[in-house]
Amino acid sequence: MLAPGAEPDVALARRLFDELKRRTGDSKGVTRASYGQGEQIAHGIVRREAEALGLDIATDAACNLYMTYAGTTPGRATFIGSHLDSVPLGGNFDGAAGVLMGLSVIAGYRRAGMRAPRDVTLMAIRAEESTWFGASYIGSRAAFGRLTGRELDDVRRSDDRTGLGAAIDAAGGDTGRLRRNESYLDPSHIGVFIEPHIEQGPALVAQGKPVGIVTGIRGSFRFRDACCHGAYAHSGATPRAARKDAVRAVAALITALDSLWSDWEANGHDLTVTFGKISTDPAEHAFSKVAGRVDFSLDLRSQSPETLRRLQVQLMQTVADIETAHGVGFDLGAMTGSDPAEMHPAVIAGLETASVATESPAIRMPGGAGHDAAVFAQMGVPTGMLFVRNANGSHNPEEEMDIGDFAAAARVLSRFCLSPPDCGE
Amino acid sequence: MLAPGAEPDVALARRLFDELKRRTGDSKGVTRASYGQGEQIAHGIVRREAEALGLDIATDAACNLYMTYAGTTPGRATFIGSHLDSVPLGGNFDGAAGVLMGLSVIAGYRRAGMRAPRDVTLMAIRAEESTWFGASYIGSRAAFGRLTGRELDDVRRSDDRTGLGAAIDAAGGDTGRLRRNESYLDPSHIGVFIEPHIEQGPALVAQGKPVGIVTGIRGSFRFRDACCHGAYAHSGATPRAARKDAVRAVAALITALDSLWSDWEANGHDLTVTFGKISTDPAEHAFSKVAGRVDFSLDLRSQSPETLRRLQVQLMQTVADIETAHGVGFDLGAMTGSDPAEMHPAVIAGLETASVATESPAIRMPGGAGHDAAVFAQMGVPTGMLFVRNANGSHNPEEEMDIGDFAAAARVLSRFCLSPPDCGE
Repeated sequence: MLAPGAEPDVALARRLFDELKRRTGDSKGVTRASYGQGEQIAHGIVRREAEALGLDIATDAACNLYMTYAGTTPGRATFIGSHLDSVPLGGNFDGAAGVLMGLSVIAGYRRAGMRAPRDVTLMAIRAEESTWFGASYIGSRAAFGRLTGRELDDVRRSDDRTGLGAAIDAAGGDTGRLRRNESYLDPSHIGVFIEPHIEQGPALVAQGKPVGIVTGIRGSFRFRDACCHGAYAHSGATPRAARKDAVRAVAALITALDSLWSDWEANGHDLTVTFGKISTDPAEHAFSKVAGRVDFSLDLRSQSPETLRRLQVQLMQTVADIETAHGVGFDLGAMTGSDPAEMHPAVIAGLETASVATESPAIRMPGGAGHDAAVFAQMGVPTGMLFVRNANGSHNPEEEMDIGDFAAAARVLSRFCLSPPDCGE
Repeated sequence: MLAPGAEPDVALARRLFDELKRRTGDSKGVTRASYGQGEQIAHGIVRREAEALGLDIATDAACNLYMTYAGTTPGRATFIGSHLDSVPLGGNFDGAAGVLMGLSVIAGYRRAGMRAPRDVTLMAIRAEESTWFGASYIGSRAAFGRLTGRELDDVRRSDDRTGLGAAIDAAGGDTGRLRRNESYLDPSHIGVFIEPHIEQGPALVAQGKPVGIVTGIRGSFRFRDACCHGAYAHSGATPRAARKDAVRAVAALITALDSLWSDWEANGHDLTVTFGKISTDPAEHAFSKVAGRVDFSLDLRSQSPETLRRLQVQLMQTVADIETAHGVGFDLGAMTGSDPAEMHPAVIAGLETASVATESPAIRMPGGAGHDAAVFAQMGVPTGMLFVRNANGSHNPEEEMDIGDFAAAARVLSRFCLSPPDCGE
């Protein structure tokens, strides 16, 4: 059992979830665009609450927000961090749950008059949802001075084409400092980084467990703007052999990669294959025309760098085969992606110890989605993630996290921060 | 050799093709919406020329235009007909070539002071391109009083949602008469109906022949607004087995039907399978989301009613199998379609005789696309079609008909109308 004084202030989190939902809600769920209106509102709410709790407040050049509750002794800080943006028509818990969990843990300490041994810094990270700007981990990379000038200039928001640099400056940032690659965070000053997050898959629901401890984060490579070019032709008058049907060709690619996924998975390899977007050209397509063009996106992920490499080779071969068989041409466009990241063994063990001390022993599990935690791990910060059970996946309005599960994870986190592991300080 | 007096006035056709292209051109090709601006312009041009040739002009309640050059003796008229509308961003020749061929044949007779034995009525038919109103053969069915009140009320233009009835009235028609199913045309008064049309497939180009004589027209069934419902989910965090991926399911359907097409064709069956439109939902899709919804269209055609029946059964079975395998639901929506139609043997023979008498003997060939000629055949009118060689298919701006091939077909038509076959008058 935890000391009563470390009981997290879940009522605070509940109130803020409600306010977020109300103030960033859209027709179906919530929309908190990276560096857009919804994210600004969310940062304002969290900052206001942190000020009310008397935390030390700071921001960096990319508008990441740092809220620190001083510890009892000097040394490397314990970081709790997650993001406050969401996908369009997304759910209220993805990202926000991690930040509100940090707030409720700190509020719990404060209510009990307790301090952790080290500073606890809650970080509200910017722009994690790459659906807006098409680049991964913008906020956390910026905090380490690893956003490039090319990204600031060339990357544009997918809907209104705002440039990333312009959006950061408009939100109150300072792209001058980012361009000089000034690092706000020094990895050697961070003892441990923990990102609490709702689970975005169905594993905890399936196993009846409220809390998961992540062992590693999948890396990925993506083609966000891929295209297949064929030739428009009459649907009734063009024989099968004479067609250059872009729909049939892309369907063949989807089916081939699905079959590859099934085979590799059966052989024990970790991967996911997702064609999330597909469309014929609304200006030219017709039900009575063979389609001359299909645009699509492709997202491939794995925990294994080797699997990602092999996937890439296999994809190129499959594309070439389909081009020959169907008389079409593929233009996959720019490839983006991220490397897989391992969570730190001592952090995993520390979270496990903390969870055993609560009434909700957690299970270990892989992390399928990308998270800012991957950046901290790659920067050499001892990093861990806590997953909270959540039904119906994430990135959609039907996300369903029980506040009781949130409380269970918050208790694990509260306990953990009271005795953070020594990872070689 | 034809008598010199029957040489068609191809210069007239060339001039009108140019005017049509100029006045109904869009950014890439031509757009002549059914009962829309482009079709109205085209009807105005053709009517003006018919008046200049001194033809008897009439219109029916659906705005079909009839232009008659009186024959020498009473009896059933010889009809030449085609449509003047086009698909969006379509080509200048699909449809219009048939009407302008009729005009050039009549103008040739008039220039030579000749008359055919029977009245020659050129019919400019409305609304053949079902991409606009999603219903087949609107103009020709209306001429026979076979448009339903439900169609007039419920069918809407795919882009601006104008109702069909409202569009007909706005173009100068009289939906009151259409609702009473008044038939403007009496099949027993038509001796023969000929629809000249560019070939929409590559057969004449491949065989090096300028003119084809159609033996039959493919029938079809279509699902213009089909949908597959799955569940949106995170692309990295949702395992393969837990997905309800609408993209993967529709790709499986496309691939399965393509494979069926290949098998059936190898066994000598005539069919085409086309998924012309496909799209995830732009408001909800993302490259990092498993797609919860895909909209698509499906167009299946065959010259054989039996093949169409078997296809339908096979489609439903395949859909059910994919629903089970992928955890998705299909809603194929309303099914529309048309019956296959045979061209009249005496008309085919008459066209062949006429073609042999010219320097361009024609070949017999199946007609893959739907045409108004199918309606006349189904109404019991002895019907035939002439195809003109055309590169790059139709329904696109790259249609490429050589005016010399047009002239060759016009000579066949001119010769044919001078001695139309007796099909049992």
